[in-house]
Amino acid sequence: MTRDLYLGIDTGGTAVKYEVAAADGGTLGGGEVPTDPGDVAATLRALAADAAPLLGGAALPRLAAVGMACAGIVNPVTGHLGRSPNLPGWENSDLGGAVSAAFGGVPSALANDVNGALYGEYRHGAGRGCRDVVMIALGTGVGGGVVVDGKLLIGSHFGAGEIGHMVLDGDGPPCTCGSRGCLEAWAGSTGLLRATRELVAAGGASAALAGLAASRGAELTTRDLAELAEAGDPAAIGVFAAAGRKLGQAVGNLVNVLDPDRVIIGGGVARAGDLILAPCREVASRLILATEARHLPIVPAELGPRAAAVGAASLAREKAREGA
Amino acid sequence: MTRDLYLGIDTGGTAVKYEVAAADGGTLGGGEVPTDPGDVAATLRALAADAAPLLGGAALPRLAAVGMACAGIVNPVTGHLGRSPNLPGWENSDLGGAVSAAFGGVPSALANDVNGALYGEYRHGAGRGCRDVVMIALGTGVGGGVVVDGKLLIGSHFGAGEIGHMVLDGDGPPCTCGSRGCLEAWAGSTGLLRATRELVAAGGASAALAGLAASRGAELTTRDLAELAEAGDPAAIGVFAAAGRKLGQAVGNLVNVLDPDRVIIGGGVARAGDLILAPCREVASRLILATEARHLPIVPAELGPRAAAVGAASLAREKAREGA
Repeated sequence: MTRDLYLGIDTGGTAVKYEVAAADGGTLGGGEVPTDPGDVAATLRALAADAAPLLGGAALPRLAAVGMACAGIVNPVTGHLGRSPNLPGWENSDLGGAVSAAFGGVPSALANDVNGALYGEYRHGAGRGCRDVVMIALGTGVGGGVVVDGKLLIGSHFGAGEIGHMVLDGDGPPCTCGSRGCLEAWAGSTGLLRATRELVAAGGASAALAGLAASRGAELTTRDLAELAEAGDPAAIGVFAAAGRKLGQAVGNLVNVLDPDRVIIGGGVARAGDLILAPCREVASRLILATEARHLPIVPAELGPRAAAVGAASLAREKAREGA
Repeated sequence: MTRDLYLGIDTGGTAVKYEVAAADGGTLGGGEVPTDPGDVAATLRALAADAAPLLGGAALPRLAAVGMACAGIVNPVTGHLGRSPNLPGWENSDLGGAVSAAFGGVPSALANDVNGALYGEYRHGAGRGCRDVVMIALGTGVGGGVVVDGKLLIGSHFGAGEIGHMVLDGDGPPCTCGSRGCLEAWAGSTGLLRATRELVAAGGASAALAGLAASRGAELTTRDLAELAEAGDPAAIGVFAAAGRKLGQAVGNLVNVLDPDRVIIGGGVARAGDLILAPCREVASRLILATEARHLPIVPAELGPRAAAVGAASLAREKAREGA
């Protein structure tokens, strides 16, 4: 049987998602199994069993290579996983070796989680056809990644892409990292919800927003806020616009340094769409110096929560080609 | 006669500097001729005549390739020079073709001026032995450049490296580009001198600094300021420290995104040395997330005004190797 399929795995603290892809990148399907944060081998055994039907049977005869996107400090050259707070039994280990071993010795490729998602979007999503891409993922925190000339930017200490901690105003709101005024403090969901509560506390919110914040309390989400904004509430619109303008400052700064052909905005907060992207584009285009770059596409991610597994499968495919 | 020498040219609005380098990068010497901003061919003829003794005679028999660093928007792939405000007779032309033609048809390599200086430092100066380097040039304005994995970062629209226009505080001082709070508005000499005059006008300067500002008037330079600071004047020290802290914010932001192995600070303002570099390092190390990157070397440039010509000669050498 030909080894013609590629397995992409996205490891999170609670679940491990996977995609099985063909040589042309098309997906054959996927699934997920629970993560055992204390035991890499047990997690991968369960995943192999779950994916076996797509891979030709229990011996995985069609599997050519495995890619894994994993939260933490990942050395993509050696396959070593360094610090990874949500995976205590996985960190500081030869994860690439463990992955190969769990899947019959096929080659493995590793990336951190945001780079995995970026690579998925770059090859099969919102970044298709580009050479230089910046991605910003607006989740609880804010992550990021950069593709330069078709390759993931890794950095000298495997630390590149920390776009969320670009300081946009040294007197800005406090960030979880200990600094003030990081992009994350404005445009991550934690920061955005904190700004909302401060607005309500200061009496600057609409009655509808104040009521929503009171009724949802600690359960308030950016999805709730987006629904209110989409219904036309000016205070909720204003909260997204403020975050979007700071995002635009970050995008402008990044485009001036990196001059990519596209910027992709992903993560849960980005589901607010033009509520956050329109003010972002407005500020970015004002800050970008190179005339030709001033109206570069700043677009939402397309692959949603599948992105990192799709990207990991692409990295696996390239790893196999390098070896061939 | 073997074609074993490389000519590196640094084109400015008033003078064209050159260096002649051997295959090992060692310099055989250099010189400069006046720029004719209206006539590329005349400028290059004069330069060829001036450099001929180093290159084996009037027919330049030892010349293997020419590199040119040039202010403006440079397409290093095609050799096209786009906008270049100080070189009205040069802009929007096939500069690479003109350079090759002026030097007997040898291969030519082009870069913008800051990238030329960065490449010189990377190959033969403060960046020797690194793979990923960021350079910030603190002149009247602030320029910058990035080497990723041994290659100059050019960008999709030949606009990468505009580090000087990273907005560090949207409410900061006005910048020549029309934005507010760009790095350049704090750490370029124009911005630094403006901050000094504002300090004097507000009565916050020492008597010595106020006296210096009054006596030098519009002729005040950052060199004057540095001398006063080196003599221990706290107000002058404070002016450099404020610029250095903003430089540190920019460096921290850049290291978080790019994770280089070294940051080089060049340009006239950087001659103030630790007056500006010490506060820069202090802020940057506080902002950098990756533990391993937190104490990366942030060092002064080494090649001074020769850097861009040295870098252009290196680019010529690589161009000749590519062709071989």
